Amino acid sequence: MGKNRLEAFSDGVIAIIITIMVLELKVPHGDEIAVLLPLVPVLLSYVLSFVYLGIYWNNHHHMLHTCRTVTGSVLWANLHLLFWLSLVPFTTGWMGENHFATLPAAMYGFVLLMAAIAYWILQQRIIASQGEESILKKAIGNDWKGRLSPFMYVAAIALAFSAPWTAVAIYVLVAVIWVVPDRRIERVLTGREAGE
Amino acid sequence: MGKNRLEAFSDGVIAIIITIMVLELKVPHGDEIAVLLPLVPVLLSYVLSFVYLGIYWNNHHHMLHTCRTVTGSVLWANLHLLFWLSLVPFTTGWMGENHFATLPAAMYGFVLLMAAIAYWILQQRIIASQGEESILKKAIGNDWKGRLSPFMYVAAIALAFSAPWTAVAIYVLVAVIWVVPDRRIERVLTGREAGE
Amino acid sequence: MGKNRLEAFSDGVIAIIITIMVLELKVPHGDEIAVLLPLVPVLLSYVLSFVYLGIYWNNHHHMLHTCRTVTGSVLWANLHLLFWLSLVPFTTGWMGENHFATLPAAMYGFVLLMAAIAYWILQQRIIASQGEESILKKAIGNDWKGRLSPFMYVAAIALAFSAPWTAVAIYVLVAVIWVVPDRRIERVLTGREAGE
Amino acid sequence: MGKNRLEAFSDGVIAIIITIMVLELKVPHGDEIAVLLPLVPVLLSYVLSFVYLGIYWNNHHHMLHTCRTVTGSVLWANLHLLFWLSLVPFTTGWMGENHFATLPAAMYGFVLLMAAIAYWILQQRIIASQGEESILKKAIGNDWKGRLSPFMYVAAIALAFSAPWTAVAIYVLVAVIWVVPDRRIERVLTGREAGE
Repeated sequence: MGKNRLEAFSDGVIAIIITIMVLELKVPHGDEIAVLLPLVPVLLSYVLSFVYLGIYWNNHHHMLHTCRTVTGSVLWANLHLLFWLSLVPFTTGWMGENHFATLPAAMYGFVLLMAAIAYWILQQRIIASQGEESILKKAIGNDWKGRLSPFMYVAAIALAFSAPWTAVAIYVLVAVIWVVPDRRIERVLTGREAGE
Repeated sequence: MGKNRLEAFSDGVIAIIITIMVLELKVPHGDEIAVLLPLVPVLLSYVLSFVYLGIYWNNHHHMLHTCRTVTGSVLWANLHLLFWLSLVPFTTGWMGENHFATLPAAMYGFVLLMAAIAYWILQQRIIASQGEESILKKAIGNDWKGRLSPFMYVAAIALAFSAPWTAVAIYVLVAVIWVVPDRRIERVLTGREAGE
Repeated sequence: MGKNRLEAFSDGVIAIIITIMVLELKVPHGDEIAVLLPLVPVLLSYVLSFVYLGIYWNNHHHMLHTCRTVTGSVLWANLHLLFWLSLVPFTTGWMGENHFATLPAAMYGFVLLMAAIAYWILQQRIIASQGEESILKKAIGNDWKGRLSPFMYVAAIALAFSAPWTAVAIYVLVAVIWVVPDRRIERVLTGREAGE
Repeated sequence: MGKNRLEAFSDGVIAIIITIMVLELKVPHGDEIAVLLPLVPVLLSYVLSFVYLGIYWNNHHHMLHTCRTVTGSVLWANLHLLFWLSLVPFTTGWMGENHFATLPAAMYGFVLLMAAIAYWILQQRIIASQGEESILKKAIGNDWKGRLSPFMYVAAIALAFSAPWTAVAIYVLVAVIWVVPDRRIERVLTGREAGE
């Protein structure tokens, strides 16, 4: 199995997921500003999920870049990841249409958590396929983002039941952590540790 | 006709099929757990079909890997396979929304059966195009999975009329047989034959 | 403009068109055979359009294969073709849901006619871009299929107003003419001419 | 990050956007000409957006052609552009279904404006990544189209509140300016300047 076709297929699926998500933003009846207002939370959750899928697509690319041979377990771990990502449009729409209510916000976090776990499994399968001197293992380093995110999702899911907006704030925070390049964050974190 | 474009087109179609299937999982009104419950069978049938399409994508890739020239009959046999796969979202949604009732469960098996036959035809067309020393013919070996599956689908369709859940169990079993790597299954089967 | 990206984009659009067409086959309420019956004409028109898009994809590939440089006019002629093809799911659904009634059957033919004209324009643009010794010009030969089809569509559109089913029969006939490899048809035609 | 995968992903997203837009053209009930009439403005706005997405796809390709390395900021600037383009089906459907009324027409222009700005940001990020001797910088020249378009969108948005059809006329004009090859337009403009 060449990795090119795995990349092409994953790109295709992620591109479709990111695009059909916008179908939840249904064209309203009427042409006044009032009919747009109920769509604002749907749009906001769309923006958030768009960023998440962008992050996954980006990281997925870098991860596969180090991969030479695609074993059967890498292939199924990849499909497992795509499965959880394919549920993102559903949780995005549900959360947006219910104005970030408790259960939809928790469910949104649950799917992100499962996607993060699926990503981690895929990462482990690729490392295992590369044997001792795994390039990917070196490349991810201490992988603090990858190890921190699942805990933040769990915290967000728990918080959703008392303060759903806190959960959403945590999802935004995790996205920001991934989007902002490492060095800057690390400098900020180091600064804080040194400063406080 | 280069095989690259055939692969790319097939990948595209399968990626779209696998992703639009999730559109059947319609965002419910309300934010309570109760509104999610009717979606459970839809989700379960989605999982099953996701695995089936993953299997087809995977096997399709391996099969085309051995293919050098794409004849007209290979091309149309491939489109024939994609046609039946394109009906999977429909039967998946129908089976899920009717909680695995008789007719939808039988229809689900019928489309799987037709896809299996279409796959077999494509395989024969590629083998024929490769002439005597066909690599694909050697690669598939005795092809026990490919020969067994249609009979299991036929059995499932028949059983759907008395016990629809048995039909679904058979669909799950066929998927498991394809996902689990050969050697392990063969060892299990050999072990059983020897042990009993 | 490299032709690879033009091919990839066209493949993507055609793959999506062919797949979203199946969304017109809406999952019915109820699990009896009766709820499937209204879908039969929708399915039949889907099969017909699937074959047409398969033909276009196939011919489009062969045509671009001869193309080396993509000029601006080739690019827009290609988008023009994709535009008309993108209307096929609409006319397919409309014709299927109205059981091949007059106006939908005529409209179906109109979009096929416009697609055929768009294809012809694209062909001319590529030939023009290749200058004197155009490979494509030689490859298409007398292009009897390409020249015959528009007239058959026009005849079908006219006939739709008195006998819509005749129009549909002509659409099927045109598809058959394109799917069946040339030599066989030519032999049949030659045989007839010689025999009668 | 190789630019090939960025191109392939962008192509995929644009191909899907251009195609799902047609889903707003919903199959009507009934088979008379009367049921088609309400769809005419939807079709017209679809044609306009199809041309816009074709222009973006075309220009995007030429821009990336000059790009050798894809930095993190280029990648996110590209996703930012795709985000705004992904909203085009929504504004297209809203404008079409409301017969080019004030607010939908203004909103349509707003998304075009944001896409134009996103495109400009992406252009700047690529030029910055190429350093001093940027090929892209030379290639775009004075970029009069790119600099003029945002102002025309702003004018159209303002005009939409008094005369929505003028706004639409401006959108058509901008599309024409981009589609028609430069030299011809420049000759026309030069001719006018000289003649008047």
